[in-house]
Amino acid sequence: MTNDTQRSVVLKRRPTGEPGPGHFEIVSNPVPQPGAGEVLTRTIWLSIDPYMRGRLREVQTYAAPIMPGEVMTGETIGEVIASGDPGFAPGDIVGGARGWQSHSISPAAALYKIDRHAAPLSAYLGVLGMPGTTAYSGMTDIGQPKKGETVVISAASGAVGSVAGQLAKRAGARVVGVAGGPDKCLWVQEALGFDACIDHRVGNLDSALRDTCPDGIDVYFENVGGALQHAVFAQLNAFARVVMCGMVAQYNETEMPPGPNLGFVIGKRVRIQGLIVSDNPARFAEWRALASPWVKDGSLHYRETVLDGLDSAPAALTGILRGENFGKMLVKVGADPA
Amino acid sequence: MTNDTQRSVVLKRRPTGEPGPGHFEIVSNPVPQPGAGEVLTRTIWLSIDPYMRGRLREVQTYAAPIMPGEVMTGETIGEVIASGDPGFAPGDIVGGARGWQSHSISPAAALYKIDRHAAPLSAYLGVLGMPGTTAYSGMTDIGQPKKGETVVISAASGAVGSVAGQLAKRAGARVVGVAGGPDKCLWVQEALGFDACIDHRVGNLDSALRDTCPDGIDVYFENVGGALQHAVFAQLNAFARVVMCGMVAQYNETEMPPGPNLGFVIGKRVRIQGLIVSDNPARFAEWRALASPWVKDGSLHYRETVLDGLDSAPAALTGILRGENFGKMLVKVGADPA
Repeated sequence: MTNDTQRSVVLKRRPTGEPGPGHFEIVSNPVPQPGAGEVLTRTIWLSIDPYMRGRLREVQTYAAPIMPGEVMTGETIGEVIASGDPGFAPGDIVGGARGWQSHSISPAAALYKIDRHAAPLSAYLGVLGMPGTTAYSGMTDIGQPKKGETVVISAASGAVGSVAGQLAKRAGARVVGVAGGPDKCLWVQEALGFDACIDHRVGNLDSALRDTCPDGIDVYFENVGGALQHAVFAQLNAFARVVMCGMVAQYNETEMPPGPNLGFVIGKRVRIQGLIVSDNPARFAEWRALASPWVKDGSLHYRETVLDGLDSAPAALTGILRGENFGKMLVKVGADPA
Repeated sequence: MTNDTQRSVVLKRRPTGEPGPGHFEIVSNPVPQPGAGEVLTRTIWLSIDPYMRGRLREVQTYAAPIMPGEVMTGETIGEVIASGDPGFAPGDIVGGARGWQSHSISPAAALYKIDRHAAPLSAYLGVLGMPGTTAYSGMTDIGQPKKGETVVISAASGAVGSVAGQLAKRAGARVVGVAGGPDKCLWVQEALGFDACIDHRVGNLDSALRDTCPDGIDVYFENVGGALQHAVFAQLNAFARVVMCGMVAQYNETEMPPGPNLGFVIGKRVRIQGLIVSDNPARFAEWRALASPWVKDGSLHYRETVLDGLDSAPAALTGILRGENFGKMLVKVGADPA
C-alpha cells in the first residue's frame, strides 16, 4: 500500500450464478489529486454487503448497475490525505460510499466526519452504519414489534439481523433467530439474548418454528427468502408484519423460484413491505445518535468477520453470499490512523 | 313463500372444488316467534359473495367455518314481521347478516334500520353495503391512489372492483380494469369511466398491461389472484401498494398454486397488505353516508345480477366463483315491502 498508487477493484465481466475473484480485476493508477471542493481519502475499512450482488446484474433496480470497467460500489471509512475543501483537513476520519479502492477522490458533500473515539471505526460500517440503520428503519417503519409479540429474524447473526433482533428484544418482544450452524446460533442466544435460535441446516424448519413460536409469528424480518420464507409465512399471525429487507438465498440464482401463495395475506391481514434504507436518509444520523451510547456501554452487541487487503474484496462478496461471514463482513484495506 | 314456514339453506356436505346445489339442502321449520329483545324478519334480498367459499372449508380463518347442518351465512335485507324489542316495529326495513333463509330471528343489536326511500334496497348489499365498504376501506387504508398514478383493478365489473375503480377515478388516477368478456369491459369503460379495460380471456396479459399502463402500475386492487397477479406484480412501480382483497381464481382449488417470487418487493419497496372489511366496522356507516348521495345523483354506478328465490342461492354461489355474475350477485328471496 503506497501513497503513490490508487488500486481499484473493477468489474471485469458479469457473473452468472456465484460471483468470484475471476469476475473482477485490480486496476492501478497514480493517486489523483483533489480539485476545489474535493477531498482525497485513503480507505481504511470497506463494507461488503449482500446488496452488492444486485449491482452486478445488468438491470436497473433502485440503483444503476455497475458496468464492466467500473469500480465496485461500497461503503467505506477512510482518512483524509489531502483536501481542496475547507470543511475537511488531512487526518480527518470520514465515512462515505467510496467503493472498492485504496484511495478515492470525493466531492466534500459525499463524506461525513466520524468521531474516531466514540466507537471503533469499523462499527460505522456495521452496527452504527448502513446495516444497523436498515434494521432500525425496518423495525421502526414496518415491523413495529410490541411487548409480548413473537418476532422471527432470518440471518440472525448478520449485521442487519443481529441489530433487528436486539431492537425487538428492547421492545419487549419474544425473539427467535434463524442462522446457519451451531456457533452462530449459540452467539445469537448467548450474546444477543434472543429467546431461541433455529439452525436452518438441521432438522425441519416447519416444526422448529412451531416449537420455538408456539403463539405464531407477529413480525418477520426477512433477509434470506427461500424455504425459510415459505415456512415462516405459513405460521404468521393475524395482522403480522413482514419487513422485506433481503432475499440473499436467491441473489445468485438466474431463474427466480416461485414464491408462497399469497392467499393468507388476505385472511390474516398481513402487511408485506419492502425496505431500502437510503429512502429515508435522516434515519442514518438518528440511528447513530440513538445507538452510539449502546455500543459504548456494551449493551448493543455485534460481531465482525474481517478479510485482509483490498484484493480479498471479491472473495468477501463470495463469502457473504454463501453465509460464511459471522456478523458484519469487512475488508481491512488500509492501516488504522496514527 | 308463506308466513308459516321458515326455509333455510344448510350445508349438507363440504365441497371439494366447485360448490353446487348438491352440497346444500333446504330445511323447513315453522316460523319461530321472537322473544324479548329479539326481532323476526322475513328476507327480501340475500347477498352472494366470493368470501362464502372460504366458509365452506373446514378451517378456522378470520371467521369460523360453517359446519354441516348449519345455515349458510350471508348479508340480507329484510322486513320486520314481529318484534320483541322496542327499537323495531313490523314494517321496518333492516339489514343484517341473517344468512340464507326466508325468515330469521335476530337479537335487535344485530340489525340496523334502512331508509327505504334513500336508495334501492338491494344497493345496501352492494354499492352501499359490504362490497362498497370493502372498496372504500381498501382504497382509503392501503391503496391511497394519487392524482396521475396508474391503478389496476381486477374483477373490475364486480361489486367491489367497480366501486374501487370509481374511487380511484375520483382521486384523479388513471384507472385500468381487468374483466372477463367484452360486455363487462365495455361497461367498465363506458359506464364506470375507467380509462381502459383488459379482457383477460383474450390475448396476452403482460402485453395488454404494458399497453394500457405505459407508466407502470402504482396501485393494484387484487380481487382475483392467479396469472393476473403474476402479470401485474411484474409491472409494479417503486412504492406501489397492493390491496389484497380477494383471490377468487383459487377459491375452488384444493392445492394452492405457488405465488410470485417476492424479490421485487424489496427493490421496489412495494407494500402488499390484506384487508378484511369487518376489522373496521365504523367504515360501514361512514361509507353509506359518503356514497348515498352519489347513488342518488347517479354519479356512482353499479350493476346487479339477480337470481330468483332462495333455492337459487347455491347456484348463485357457483356462478359468482365462475365469474358469471355481472356486478353484484343477489338472490331475491321475498317480495318487496308493500
